[in-house]
Amino acid sequence: MPKYTIGLDYGTNSVRAVVVNTVNGKEVASSAWKYEHGCDGILLSDDPNLARQDPADYLKGAETTVRRALAGAKRNNKYFSVDQVVALGVGTTGSTPIPLNRQGQPLAFQKRFEDNLAAMAWLWKDHTSAGEAEFITNEARKMRPQYLAKCGGTYSSEWFFSKILHCLRTSPKVFEAAYTWVEAADWIPAVLTGTDEPDKLSIGICAAGHKAMYSDEWGGYPDEKFLLRLDRKLAGLRSRLVSKAKTIGQSVGELTEEWAKRMKLPAGLPVSVGAFDAHLGAVGSGIKPGTMVKILGTSTCDMMVVPTSQRIANVPGLCGIVTGSVVPGFVGLEAGQSAVGDIFNWFVNYIAPGGKTAGSHSALTKEAASLAPGESGLLALDWNNGNRTVLIDPKLTGLVLGQTLHTTPAEIYRALVEATAFGALTIINRFEQYNIKVEDIVNCGGIAGKNPMVMQIYADVTNRPMKIAKSSQACALGAAVAAAVTGGVYPTVPAAQEAMTGLKRKVYKPNPKAVAVYKKLYLLYKQIHDCFGTTSWKGNCHNVMKELLEIRTQARG
Amino acid sequence: MPKYTIGLDYGTNSVRAVVVNTVNGKEVASSAWKYEHGCDGILLSDDPNLARQDPADYLKGAETTVRRALAGAKRNNKYFSVDQVVALGVGTTGSTPIPLNRQGQPLAFQKRFEDNLAAMAWLWKDHTSAGEAEFITNEARKMRPQYLAKCGGTYSSEWFFSKILHCLRTSPKVFEAAYTWVEAADWIPAVLTGTDEPDKLSIGICAAGHKAMYSDEWGGYPDEKFLLRLDRKLAGLRSRLVSKAKTIGQSVGELTEEWAKRMKLPAGLPVSVGAFDAHLGAVGSGIKPGTMVKILGTSTCDMMVVPTSQRIANVPGLCGIVTGSVVPGFVGLEAGQSAVGDIFNWFVNYIAPGGKTAGSHSALTKEAASLAPGESGLLALDWNNGNRTVLIDPKLTGLVLGQTLHTTPAEIYRALVEATAFGALTIINRFEQYNIKVEDIVNCGGIAGKNPMVMQIYADVTNRPMKIAKSSQACALGAAVAAAVTGGVYPTVPAAQEAMTGLKRKVYKPNPKAVAVYKKLYLLYKQIHDCFGTTSWKGNCHNVMKELLEIRTQARG
Repeated sequence: MPKYTIGLDYGTNSVRAVVVNTVNGKEVASSAWKYEHGCDGILLSDDPNLARQDPADYLKGAETTVRRALAGAKRNNKYFSVDQVVALGVGTTGSTPIPLNRQGQPLAFQKRFEDNLAAMAWLWKDHTSAGEAEFITNEARKMRPQYLAKCGGTYSSEWFFSKILHCLRTSPKVFEAAYTWVEAADWIPAVLTGTDEPDKLSIGICAAGHKAMYSDEWGGYPDEKFLLRLDRKLAGLRSRLVSKAKTIGQSVGELTEEWAKRMKLPAGLPVSVGAFDAHLGAVGSGIKPGTMVKILGTSTCDMMVVPTSQRIANVPGLCGIVTGSVVPGFVGLEAGQSAVGDIFNWFVNYIAPGGKTAGSHSALTKEAASLAPGESGLLALDWNNGNRTVLIDPKLTGLVLGQTLHTTPAEIYRALVEATAFGALTIINRFEQYNIKVEDIVNCGGIAGKNPMVMQIYADVTNRPMKIAKSSQACALGAAVAAAVTGGVYPTVPAAQEAMTGLKRKVYKPNPKAVAVYKKLYLLYKQIHDCFGTTSWKGNCHNVMKELLEIRTQARG
Repeated sequence: MPKYTIGLDYGTNSVRAVVVNTVNGKEVASSAWKYEHGCDGILLSDDPNLARQDPADYLKGAETTVRRALAGAKRNNKYFSVDQVVALGVGTTGSTPIPLNRQGQPLAFQKRFEDNLAAMAWLWKDHTSAGEAEFITNEARKMRPQYLAKCGGTYSSEWFFSKILHCLRTSPKVFEAAYTWVEAADWIPAVLTGTDEPDKLSIGICAAGHKAMYSDEWGGYPDEKFLLRLDRKLAGLRSRLVSKAKTIGQSVGELTEEWAKRMKLPAGLPVSVGAFDAHLGAVGSGIKPGTMVKILGTSTCDMMVVPTSQRIANVPGLCGIVTGSVVPGFVGLEAGQSAVGDIFNWFVNYIAPGGKTAGSHSALTKEAASLAPGESGLLALDWNNGNRTVLIDPKLTGLVLGQTLHTTPAEIYRALVEATAFGALTIINRFEQYNIKVEDIVNCGGIAGKNPMVMQIYADVTNRPMKIAKSSQACALGAAVAAAVTGGVYPTVPAAQEAMTGLKRKVYKPNPKAVAVYKKLYLLYKQIHDCFGTTSWKGNCHNVMKELLEIRTQARG
């Protein structure tokens, strides 16, 4: 009888549960549920930088999707029984910290805070804390440069302490009422296992290491002296944070009676330590040394792992270099782009261009795919949501240049896709500059499976084959892989990956003619990137529009 | 009994005739007719740089509009009689050269060339001749810098000799078949008066001086030695061009019997020397020393006049400095933007953004007008059709930066309007840097009368009141003013202007709060302008997106 695990994957707008056969990684059933609060799960506000979620959505989502997925598994496989489920794993967005009271309950669940956005889950893409991020970066640069070295040299506004410090400064009542703060990735497993009281909580190294400057090198979270420099009250919080982080595959506890009933699962199932969706997506896509996994969604994460035995530099501009954060026993490296699918969605939903490509990704893609590289004459920067890697600068914005009086929506759409590809190449180059060889690229996430034009452009721009993870739900599969270790089916994550993950047959190979054009365009992208993104660049961009016109003329041949 | 004149105004997409009372400049009747060939009068082609027109549209348009306008005048004023019409004036786009055969007939009217785009009228905005313009500029720079000094230092791809040389190089059969070339502004008066045979032709100083390096200083058109350097065959053409240019108010001849019958006018009426629409628009808006007239249409022309007695520098970046070109007895100075209304039209028609502002200038304007200066966080360059003044560079393209994931179409629309205002300010500054004081600004053309938001933004960006010409058909009125001199009603153009032109009561005054914000934004515009538009600028643009975000935050207050 095969054993099954359940992977829960909390995305930006919805949560998904998959039931996975641990023998081969096959998904037996799956169920997704859209968060019911706010707009697509993001609570409404006037501030475009603000993005908060109601943690109630996480709980209702767990119950709804697991029940439905189990029912689906029974429908799809008559031999399936819930008794064959051996463990659960959880992946979430992050850094998405939630303030809890002394009993471990989210402040959002209290009447007095139910309409207070500061009491909610601070979603990864919340950018209200840009000032605090700058402050933390500056203080760390002076006092604890080693902290920054592990997170690319800049502490981000998207991260744990920036958000908490912003809450402290702007919503002191919420800060005062919070006994502790915990990442959504840690809070959900804790609730499911009844370990959500502050003294029972477990935390994962993934969130702590990548977003909260946690490292065993310096004894966990940033030391008190440093936090004191940031704010006395932040220093006070330190002793109320969990002091020791675990890795995926380890257990945080067992499913409570209550949750077993709600999910229609046996009580007592072990639940794996939570991690971020992107990290679990890398696991579910078979990440190993030499293989970059790109998780392509609204934003991207570009993940690598390196054996702990290998000496690696502190690569500047990465989001994190954390031992054990992706696969236990390996150093996890995270890079990424703040917006990819989100930029395409912005163009379709906000600009909503008309004409024959009106209103849909598919119509725009179809026409954009018919264009030759360089034919649009356009060049764009993929910074509509700031730049995460390699500039780590949220105060950057989008740019499109090269427009004439005839520029079409499909041309702009293609230029936006190309911009994200150039951004991806910039990340690959950064890894390789620091001797982390990118031998293979595996893509997962919605765009990877659904949009061959995007994948072909990525292959042509990076001049590397683009492979696709076999599972279309790599993040949820990664959570199920973690659970397969937690449940004792496999002794290690790599062993579970070996059995449970794989690639699709289709590989997007670079087209040499397109590669040649994109080589020229990338030089122009890099010029604009450095001109607007760095203080060290010096020159002018007088050549840019002219070269684009020249490339366009050649492309139209 | 008041005397009347008729002004014919040939625009990019249509022609208009107005019947004007010479006593007070009042328009008694008006009639417009859309060119019937191609798309909005521009012949179809795959090349986005190509813009040609069928000269047959000019003739049918003359007949149709004058007949209808006269019929309208009779309807509107029962005392009106065609016998009171004393002269006609003609304004056209330009440089719009037409190849003619030895009999003075456009090659386009011959069977063998009827489908040949090179045999048509080469519309002002045809940009196929960019290579030739560069070549002419380079040769002139070496050999005849004085030629360039009068046209801003660069010979444009939009101009007479660039187009003819391009025809010579790419359509030699058309070039060989052409006995001579003539501007539409000169050809139409010639046809109406039967002076279209090459040895009877008259030309106006406006077209020749601004677009064909014609000056009395060096004996008319560029000398043969220079043209020989460009091409032996171009030098051969020189002797077949009209050698002496006239000014508006002078007559080219009298209306032929045939045309009198077609137009239902008495034969023998004098027809004024033709000029460009923008120049006549300046006349019809009451241009005089110190007053800049902005003709706001698909593109703009920014006109100034200076008494011939005043010593003026060769202002770099202007399109032309030509004695007698606007008002006889004054030096005419022409500057302008290659695209203004065209950029707004591109956004509405090509991008066709959706949402609540879908599909119309008025909805976009309404929402854009509700934004505070700086609130969009966007900055754009108004170069979708190149830059005419002050960079004179057709190989420049549009740019929009500052986009987030929430940027709306109305925000982009406003940024495009602001970009054209920044471009306008750059022109004003250039005049003043060379001691040509801009004491007053009068706007005419469709946008000036129809879009208060645009006018207010122009007032706020330039920190000057924006006045509006009384006539909504200033170009046609200017042609009628010229005709009033040709017909002997007034002795001089200024005397005719004094009686026939005026201003609307509404003046758009700068709002000090907006002025303060736009001062900051203009510095950023100028930075991007110089970074992308000049080779002398050196630096980076790291500050730009950050300052825009800062200004946005303040604007949202």
